[in-house]
Amino acid sequence: MQILMTKAAHGRVAERLAKVAPDAQVVTAVDKDAYELDGRSIAAEDIDPEVVWLSLDSYASGTLGQLFGRLMKTDAPRWTQIMAAGIDNPMFRSIMEKGVRISKSSAQATPIAEYVVAHALSLQVPIAEAAALQARREWKSTPYHEVARTRWLMAGFGNIGHEIAKRIKPFGVHLTVVRRSPAAEGDLVDKVITLKEIGSALPDADVVVLALALNDETRGMCDEHFFRAMKPGAVLINIGRGGLVDEDALKAGLDRDQPGHAVLDVFQTEPLPADAWFWDHPKVRVTAHTSNSGDGNLDRGDNLFLENLRRYLAKEPLLNEADRSEVGLT
Amino acid sequence: MQILMTKAAHGRVAERLAKVAPDAQVVTAVDKDAYELDGRSIAAEDIDPEVVWLSLDSYASGTLGQLFGRLMKTDAPRWTQIMAAGIDNPMFRSIMEKGVRISKSSAQATPIAEYVVAHALSLQVPIAEAAALQARREWKSTPYHEVARTRWLMAGFGNIGHEIAKRIKPFGVHLTVVRRSPAAEGDLVDKVITLKEIGSALPDADVVVLALALNDETRGMCDEHFFRAMKPGAVLINIGRGGLVDEDALKAGLDRDQPGHAVLDVFQTEPLPADAWFWDHPKVRVTAHTSNSGDGNLDRGDNLFLENLRRYLAKEPLLNEADRSEVGLT
Repeated sequence: MQILMTKAAHGRVAERLAKVAPDAQVVTAVDKDAYELDGRSIAAEDIDPEVVWLSLDSYASGTLGQLFGRLMKTDAPRWTQIMAAGIDNPMFRSIMEKGVRISKSSAQATPIAEYVVAHALSLQVPIAEAAALQARREWKSTPYHEVARTRWLMAGFGNIGHEIAKRIKPFGVHLTVVRRSPAAEGDLVDKVITLKEIGSALPDADVVVLALALNDETRGMCDEHFFRAMKPGAVLINIGRGGLVDEDALKAGLDRDQPGHAVLDVFQTEPLPADAWFWDHPKVRVTAHTSNSGDGNLDRGDNLFLENLRRYLAKEPLLNEADRSEVGLT
Repeated sequence: MQILMTKAAHGRVAERLAKVAPDAQVVTAVDKDAYELDGRSIAAEDIDPEVVWLSLDSYASGTLGQLFGRLMKTDAPRWTQIMAAGIDNPMFRSIMEKGVRISKSSAQATPIAEYVVAHALSLQVPIAEAAALQARREWKSTPYHEVARTRWLMAGFGNIGHEIAKRIKPFGVHLTVVRRSPAAEGDLVDKVITLKEIGSALPDADVVVLALALNDETRGMCDEHFFRAMKPGAVLINIGRGGLVDEDALKAGLDRDQPGHAVLDVFQTEPLPADAWFWDHPKVRVTAHTSNSGDGNLDRGDNLFLENLRRYLAKEPLLNEADRSEVGLT
């Protein structure tokens, strides 16, 4: 079996890889569409990878395009481990149309969960209020509504939703999650509802987190109706996709304090244009689709690939395998 | 058995109290040193409480002084439930000298833990950096050192320390706690050390939390030596007592980036004088001994009193009972 990955990725995992798949032939991609096998150059047309690993470093180093090209040109690939968590980019549909299995990444769930909890807490515990008092040299108490007494509504309960729940539940919050099937979720969750029922949960939610994939069912779901149902002063955090939100309706909602704050990492148009209204709105925090930018992604991505390779070889279910319906295929 | 509490406190708990202690006589304190028993006035000299509850509302309403006066004047009191978590105020020594048992409050541990985690996270996840980019309308990634990859050192592991640990461990941090006896602490803690060993743990700690009582052993423990041992750029959070810190040594430390940030809720002199250097130091966050100011304290305090009353009557160990050594008695 041939596995294709970047030279840098192989450098990091070679030893562990040899234990998981001792018989694998590892082809490595270097810059300028050059490949190596066992330390020697090999022509692109001579390689025939069954597994292609689109590791995080391939995104940064510019080899992603050539790995993707191999994925599309050869007939052999049966499985690819990707670094993305969302697969609304059309390239993933092309891959699945070829019959290649895709396992998505959960590596970014950790920093995204940190982002969500850090932003929510910093809006609940009076940090900005204390800073304003400090600037005035004023020694004054800052009573506040405890995080422990807040109710959270989380739309989407995949890897990211789970990582958020793990971190926020120990604060004692009440957590309602929205997911396709209203299955029980044990101690992490107080209530599970479906997307159709979200309107009934919005009036009580102090913090609303959008951690959903973008698809025909979710596109534009945060519309005027949605914002009018929100609790005044509540916090909206979007780390899903910009397309979930009707941005004009959000602006009108903020004027009514529904929501009272919006923490937005994703937008309908990215990069956000310099003249967009979000930038200087006093109730909006803009971040540049960068909630995932923690320094632990590379390690977690390596670990995930190795575990999924073990599962692939053992014919066990892969972690985070994408369903064809996620890219609009039947 | 006679129990003395404020009229407001009795109004909140009367029904539950009647179940826990159906035979108790409840004397209630109203303003201006007036008391009531069964809805009628009763003179101060005619009351003889075995239990005195210094509830949170007594601090705010001004009846604390009169409750404390009763505690000191009558001979009967055997137990008092107080609202304070720290008992370095000399009045608590006076109470214990009379032979009255004191159970401290754990109600404030929740907001203090929220304060600590919220401030630490907001310094780790690049919230301020993103705000600066937003102000410049700049769409730019903000990579950061994940909370998950930080090491925490917590000096003190009482109620507050436990509440912090419960909330921060699910982030995946490495947690070392400093406590009197190096007992094992289960899943919440990675390592337990004693105060004498703290110097060895400081160089690796990204976040150092002071959650210790002030006594002869801890007074001034954060001195020049302590700060020189800290990891450059680390965060110091003091929610213990101002007297734990040599404030001149802290100032010199901040100049060296040891620590890189200080989040201070307590000071040697409170209220903090208007000319104190802390107010406008760019690496310092000042809050007005208000880390405990969440809105859940009253409810938790009521629940704690009722549970301790049940234990008192059942002759079971009280929650949070103070040891005579804590007020310097043997």
